[in-house]
Formats: sequence, C-alpha cells, structure tokens
Amino acid sequence: MSAPLPITFLSDYGHDDEFVGVCHGVIQRVLPGAVVIDVAHGLPRGEVRQAAFVMRNSLAYMPPGVHLAVVDPGVGGGRRPVALRSGDGRLFVGPDNGLLRPAAERSGGVQTAVDLSESPYRLEPVSATFHGRDVFAPVAARLAHGTAVEDVGEPFPASDLVDLAVSGAIVGDHGVEAHVLHVDRFGNVQLNADRGQIAALGLRSGDPVELETDRGRWQASYGRTFSDVPERGMLVYEDSSEVIAVAVNQGNAARTLGLGANARIRLAPRR
Amino acid sequence: MSAPLPITFLSDYGHDDEFVGVCHGVIQRVLPGAVVIDVAHGLPRGEVRQAAFVMRNSLAYMPPGVHLAVVDPGVGGGRRPVALRSGDGRLFVGPDNGLLRPAAERSGGVQTAVDLSESPYRLEPVSATFHGRDVFAPVAARLAHGTAVEDVGEPFPASDLVDLAVSGAIVGDHGVEAHVLHVDRFGNVQLNADRGQIAALGLRSGDPVELETDRGRWQASYGRTFSDVPERGMLVYEDSSEVIAVAVNQGNAARTLGLGANARIRLAPRR
Amino acid sequence: MSAPLPITFLSDYGHDDEFVGVCHGVIQRVLPGAVVIDVAHGLPRGEVRQAAFVMRNSLAYMPPGVHLAVVDPGVGGGRRPVALRSGDGRLFVGPDNGLLRPAAERSGGVQTAVDLSESPYRLEPVSATFHGRDVFAPVAARLAHGTAVEDVGEPFPASDLVDLAVSGAIVGDHGVEAHVLHVDRFGNVQLNADRGQIAALGLRSGDPVELETDRGRWQASYGRTFSDVPERGMLVYEDSSEVIAVAVNQGNAARTLGLGANARIRLAPRR
Repeated sequence: MSAPLPITFLSDYGHDDEFVGVCHGVIQRVLPGAVVIDVAHGLPRGEVRQAAFVMRNSLAYMPPGVHLAVVDPGVGGGRRPVALRSGDGRLFVGPDNGLLRPAAERSGGVQTAVDLSESPYRLEPVSATFHGRDVFAPVAARLAHGTAVEDVGEPFPASDLVDLAVSGAIVGDHGVEAHVLHVDRFGNVQLNADRGQIAALGLRSGDPVELETDRGRWQASYGRTFSDVPERGMLVYEDSSEVIAVAVNQGNAARTLGLGANARIRLAPRR
Repeated sequence: MSAPLPITFLSDYGHDDEFVGVCHGVIQRVLPGAVVIDVAHGLPRGEVRQAAFVMRNSLAYMPPGVHLAVVDPGVGGGRRPVALRSGDGRLFVGPDNGLLRPAAERSGGVQTAVDLSESPYRLEPVSATFHGRDVFAPVAARLAHGTAVEDVGEPFPASDLVDLAVSGAIVGDHGVEAHVLHVDRFGNVQLNADRGQIAALGLRSGDPVELETDRGRWQASYGRTFSDVPERGMLVYEDSSEVIAVAVNQGNAARTLGLGANARIRLAPRR
Repeated sequence: MSAPLPITFLSDYGHDDEFVGVCHGVIQRVLPGAVVIDVAHGLPRGEVRQAAFVMRNSLAYMPPGVHLAVVDPGVGGGRRPVALRSGDGRLFVGPDNGLLRPAAERSGGVQTAVDLSESPYRLEPVSATFHGRDVFAPVAARLAHGTAVEDVGEPFPASDLVDLAVSGAIVGDHGVEAHVLHVDRFGNVQLNADRGQIAALGLRSGDPVELETDRGRWQASYGRTFSDVPERGMLVYEDSSEVIAVAVNQGNAARTLGLGANARIRLAPRR
C-alpha cells in the first residue's frame, strides 16, 4: 500500500457556513488523517470561468494528488459529476462544467474521464443541492486512499467533457483589447493578456501606458512591481500567475477603474 | 494507547482575527499532530440557536471524536463551561448555553456531563473573555488524547443542562406559519418547517406556493433543486439538511424577501 | 532525524483568493504532511504594526516551531526577506519590516538573522509580488524539516533589523492618553495602555470611567468581563492579551465610538 495522496480543495462555498467543513468531515470519515489543502473557498459565487483560471494557475504549486473543485451553479440539474486522470497522473474531481479542464490540460491533458452519477462511493441518498458533500468529497477521499479512477465511476470519452473557451486579448491598431478575468482581494485586476501581447505594443519596462475602460482613461506605467510607481500610482505588470494585471500601489485598481470580472479594457502606449 | 481522536471545531470567532488560530495553537501544544476539522467559524455573532442548528445538522458528516463549539455571549459570566459524552460515545466541549445539546441529543443523548470551571487542564490564569483558548481548546485536546471525560471536570446531572427549545412551525388554516432558522452565504433561507408539514398542505413537487412575510407576498414553486425553477425564480424545497428552505435560482432569497434570522414567514398553496 | 517542526502562518492575504492556499501547497510539496497552523489571514491589508502586535500576543499559545508571517507592503522593493532564530529556539520567517521583531524579542531576543534574498531554497524565478509563495513558504518548510537557519540564507547582524517602535500610552493630568492598536471582529478596541497605567489613575474594578475621542465623550465602567456592565453598556477592561481594551456588551465599541486603528482616545476617572 502506498501512502495516501494529499487532496487540494477549491470552491465558492465561502467561509460563513459549514459547507467546507462538512466536506472536510466527509473526507476524514473515509480517510482518517487525510492531508487537505484548502486552495480557496471565497471565489465569486458560481463564476466557473474565474475559478477554472485560479485552479489552473495555482496547480503547479500544489503537490501531485487529488484536486477537488466545486463551483457548481448547475448542481442537481443535468451536468455530469466527474473524476479525471491527467497525463502526468494528477486526479481531478468536480462538476463537468469546464472548471477542471484547463488545469487538467496544463498537466498533460485528460487521459481518463469517469462519470460519478452512479459512483459506488457516493453518500446515499444524494441530495439535490450539495454534491460537494454527497459525491465529490467521498470520491476524492477514495482516490486519495488509492482506489483507481476507473473504479469510482463509469468511463466516458474525454472529448465529451464541457469546454469553457477562454478568449484571449486581441492586439489591434489601437492597442491591446482585453477583458478582466479576476479581481483579487487587493483590487489587482488580472487580464486575459500575456507578456507577448504587451511586447507586441513595443512596451518596455518603465514606459507609460494609457488604459481605457467604459468609465474613462487613465495613465499608468509598465513595470515589474508595486514600488516601481509612486504611492497611488497605477501599474501594468506581469503578475505572479504570469498574466498581465493592473494594480495601484497602496491602492485598489478595480475600484479606481470601476472594473469587475468580464469588463473590457484597452491598453495602449502613451503617445 | 489508542490513536488520538479527531477534533471538530465550530465558533463565531470569524476569520479576521487570531481567535481560531490561537485555539488551534493551544490544541497542537497539548496534542502535537492533532487532526482538527474547522466546521465553521463565520456563524452570526452570539447566535447560539443558529449555531446549535448548524452543529446538529452537520454532526452526522463528522467522524466520531471531540466536538468543540464556542458561541458564547455569556463568557465570563455565570454560564457553566462543560464537556459531555453522548450515548454513542461522541464527546462535546463548550459553554452550557444550549449550543451542544441538540447535537448530543441526536447522537444518543447526554450520558455524562462535567463542569469544567475547575478543570485541571485549563490554562491558568483563565481570562474572563476567551474561554475558547483557556478552557475549551485545552480540554478538547486532552479528551482527543484519550483522557476520560470524568477526569476533565466535575460531574453533574445531565438534566441540569440548559435547553434551548426550538419551536417548530405550525400548520394552520392559512398554511404553515414558520420562522427563519438560518440564512446561508447564498441567501438561502432555512425554516423551522419539515417535509411532513409541507405534505400536510397537500403540496407536491411542481406545485405553486405563496409566501407571505412582513414585507409582502411572493410566488414560488415547490421543487427539488434550483434548476427546477427559471433563473431568478423562487423555490421552496427540502434542503441538504432535510429542512424546508427558500431559494432564488441564481439569486439571493434572503435579500429578495427581506428576511433575517427569526423573521416569520407563511407558506400556503396558491389558490 | 528529529520530527518536523510545526509551522504557524499569519498574513494579510485574506480568504477570498488563493494566496494562502498556494503557500500551503508549496509547504506540502517541500515537507509532505507538515502541520501548519493558520494564525490569522484577515488582518488589515499592509498594516505591519497591527500584525506585529497580533503575532507577538499570540505567540505564547503556539507550539515552538517555525513562525511564518507575511504582511509585506514593500514586496519586490528594497526590504530584506529574512529568517531569524530567537533565544529560546523559535524560528521566524518573513519580511524585515518590523513584523517579526516584537515576537522574537518576547521569545528571548534575536540570536541569529539571515538574509533570504539569495536563499538556495527559494523558488526560481522569484516573482516580484508574491514572496510568500516564492521565498517565505519554501524556506519555512525547509526550516521545519530541520535545515539550520544558517543554511537557508546569508547571516547579518541582528542590530540591522528594522524596528517598528510602538509608543505606549501616556499618563497625564487629565487621564491616560492612548491610541488604538487593533479592532477585532466584535468591535472590541485594543489600546496601547496597560494595567499599570489604569492603576495609576486610581481606578478600581466597578469604577466609572470617562472616554474622550475626537467624536465626543462616553461613560463606561472599569470591569473584568462583558457581563459586568448592562446590555449595551460600555466596558474598559484588561483583555485576554493583557492589554487595556474597550467593549460594548452585546454591541460594537469601535462603531459606537467611531474608532479605527491609530485613533486617539483619553481615559479618565469620572468626577
């Protein structure tokens, strides 16, 4: 018998209620002493795309193991509960709504997919509204214990998995047209743009950048870290997830710019 | 020596301060490597009844062990700090204000009760305001380590424990008169009504329901899960804790209805 | 090989994002099965002084081990990343901005200090904005594993460490002139005053106290715990961290008094 695998757990359950704690309880009942890493539970409610982005970006920092994720606005409806094994051997458990796939693609692609609807390891009766507790947590614990993915559900073709296409930013004549993927606690705004697109504008570290949103225009600098701009100054930078982001030094860029998830923003070199 | 028991921990300490973390520190000092499951710490401040309801409902999903709970508006006053053993061998630690009893009743009833006021395992000096740290956490860790409940405090008759009667809903001529027990992060509203009371109204899945609060009247459907009603539609359903609840699909029922804990609501079949 | 040390972890990363979870992931990759105690992560953003106060006050309740703390508004700028060993053998890891020093002073003083800028255990490439993940978490895990502090960075004189002087309250002719150090979730207000200063006013338990802030005057009582004053009554007391604090029984003193961190308040015996 090999050692149990660690479990990582990401959700939009929040910290006010017992949802996260109940899933932990279920895991410890199946696998006493399980190591569970809470990746994040305060993600915006039901925002599958944002959660998929966070999950994909954090995966490289997690030990290989079972990656449980539940952002599941369609719970109890038609969406499929699934477990996946990726090319590099990581295991993923959650709803088939696009949440798991970007992370699995980044770790070698989906090699095996199983449907958990009739899993022998689900808790009966399965409630209509809390599959984290009744399906995903107990299956994750079984996988961590060493049960093969083929034994926790019914195999189906990986090509049937839901795919949430994330559109990239577009480089045009008037700069980079981007969208907001995620706003963090500090008000830093992550965009669907990458370093190559900024380079295509001819921007170098220290250069001025003009930002345009539906609310107006702002002057920023392209730099490396917060202290590269004065206090309250606005910074465009590659963040620790290697995506282009906007921040205000000692301030809140999302509030300053009036931006939330999915909002559009244009970046251009200042003339 | 048997293996240490897991500890579950529920409180209204919140996540902004160090209260929860300090209790974890105390537990790890007494019992290095202890497994602690955080059930919930964001429960409404001082709302013993709501916390007792959450604790009772989540208990079946927790491994048998030591169940630590601290929602304690009377800390430092006359209320008794206690530890209980229930009929099925679970152990409970917290203030004697009604918080622990519903959970203990559901796990075989209170078999043994001890007063922790002079417990040999409390941290001296005991502060007047933080018994979670000074009394409950160290005692919970000792119990998890294997110390008998009779050895952590002074036995007293279980019949002396405070009982927080939770009144049930009433089925009358004009429908079910209920109260709000708990509102979760998603704005779902849990009522003190059960499936039998809804059945007594003659309601079946898919039937229309009229809701009346102090703020007005709303139309809902009786169903099984969120996707049984259209987006923004209102749903009356048996939730994953097996209590009757009200939700808005992709919305916030508590905000829509203007309801908080203890508010009254009437449910009736629509004519 | 001795057993791994526990790690305590305090930050202002909050619970909405994946920052805390990613640091946990990094720790578990370096030291599988590590025991990590989350002290607090919801501390006010960038408030180094408040965090240093919370860290120092909670330390005695933590098992000896590695004490990781990240409140780091200067990340990516000139401030030094450090690890410290204190006189009683505790280890501290975080930015050299005054955060760690008060805790280290209370546990025997700083005995050894090393600069982590070129630590062999940092994750390469080190991002400019997330040293918790790239420097502090992996170094903390190595120290917990047993690596000597001298081997994780470059030694430098402890006297070079940044010192954040915390001024104490002043006893004058018109009472104690104090400042707010920290406001907790319950709205209880911790001051930079101690029991001796209150005693110097001649106040005894049960005595009336007058409070004056920039917003007005209030009447309170000097007492031991919340229930020493009537509901909504205002209490001045020595709290569980042994500092003088102001509370409202079943209420929120910070909101009542209109006080936040660093605000001034005067306490005097009522004539």
